[in-house]
Amino acid sequence: MATNQEEVKLFGVVGSAFVHGVQIALKLKGIEYEFVEEDLANKSDLLLKFNPVYKKVPVFVHNEKPISESNVILEYIDETWKQNPILPSDPYQKALVRFWSKFIQDKIVASFSKAVRAFNDEKEREKNIAEASEALKILENELKEKFFGGEEIGCVDIAAVFVAFTIPLIQEVAGFEFFTAGKFPKLYKWSKEFLNHSIVKEIVPAREPTLVYFKARYELLVSASK
Amino acid sequence: MATNQEEVKLFGVVGSAFVHGVQIALKLKGIEYEFVEEDLANKSDLLLKFNPVYKKVPVFVHNEKPISESNVILEYIDETWKQNPILPSDPYQKALVRFWSKFIQDKIVASFSKAVRAFNDEKEREKNIAEASEALKILENELKEKFFGGEEIGCVDIAAVFVAFTIPLIQEVAGFEFFTAGKFPKLYKWSKEFLNHSIVKEIVPAREPTLVYFKARYELLVSASK
Repeated sequence: MATNQEEVKLFGVVGSAFVHGVQIALKLKGIEYEFVEEDLANKSDLLLKFNPVYKKVPVFVHNEKPISESNVILEYIDETWKQNPILPSDPYQKALVRFWSKFIQDKIVASFSKAVRAFNDEKEREKNIAEASEALKILENELKEKFFGGEEIGCVDIAAVFVAFTIPLIQEVAGFEFFTAGKFPKLYKWSKEFLNHSIVKEIVPAREPTLVYFKARYELLVSASK
Repeated sequence: MATNQEEVKLFGVVGSAFVHGVQIALKLKGIEYEFVEEDLANKSDLLLKFNPVYKKVPVFVHNEKPISESNVILEYIDETWKQNPILPSDPYQKALVRFWSKFIQDKIVASFSKAVRAFNDEKEREKNIAEASEALKILENELKEKFFGGEEIGCVDIAAVFVAFTIPLIQEVAGFEFFTAGKFPKLYKWSKEFLNHSIVKEIVPAREPTLVYFKARYELLVSASK
């Protein structure tokens, strides 16, 4: 638990999978923190100061020391507060967690995001959906237990908030059929279990208002791309 | 030092910055290993078995357990063999090392590689060179001491083998003027110091044959792209 001497802040926006991932880790560890909601259309001077390289959320600030990049933040949290570990202690198991967390970011998030933004390029969209599907299949084959972390959620589950939370909503908004129970039965079941986990439920915002928000944002981007 | 009971293998190719990075880490730690030279035009069944996701080198195998992705391998090596640490022990300093190692990969290596491959698209090439230059400037501003690791080389220096070793050769082959002493004085000086480090010198192949090899490979790719 953060003591009175500690300052723990998270700069984020509601609806960002990576921000919610950090929040899930903090909640699992019982760390209290101040949430600083950013306006991405008008980023705060503090955000730009703390993350001058990417200018993105989440930014985690512990006793005035800022950290960016969600997988880096998750490891920092796990090393700083040892209770309820989200990474295994064995170096080899830890390497596998790092590999899969990076894989989700590099292969699934990147391809899916490119597909979403290919508003006017059906070929580009299809190519990226195919790549994201292939990556999702690889991830599905890695799921051996209830969660990637075993019986409890771990760092790979948290890195995959985008898969459980964001993809189902965005594919509905953008009119894809991509991540379905038929195509990815194990991963689909995992996503339901994950979103139903008591701590995840407390953090991730409700489906309906998020869908309305994502829809409005998507339509704004589509109109701007014309 | 690896004992007789330990099996340490590295699947790689001579000339790959990421393979040489792993070799530098192993040499710094005094770990003996077997180097398995791969033919990238005809990858071995073992490589495909050990890295089915990316099918790329380096793959590090310790007692039959394979690890891929060079930053993941470097952390595994540092956690398994504690002598001559390449990552700091303080969680915040470690987070910074992870941030910059990832930055080099995501921003410098990715943009530079795209620029090189844009054989027939001058606009795409220029765009990616501009992005790589911007990233290189950010990295230059991070260099506060002789090496990123301080007085000795550390994980960020090793992650940047591509900058010190690969970029100067490839830009010569491809006819860019990009990473020069005039534009990046601190980083250029660092690259010379790094390549002159006694351990790095033992690992990284000599300039001339590597240049001939990179030139031949580049011209083959150009001819195939026409």
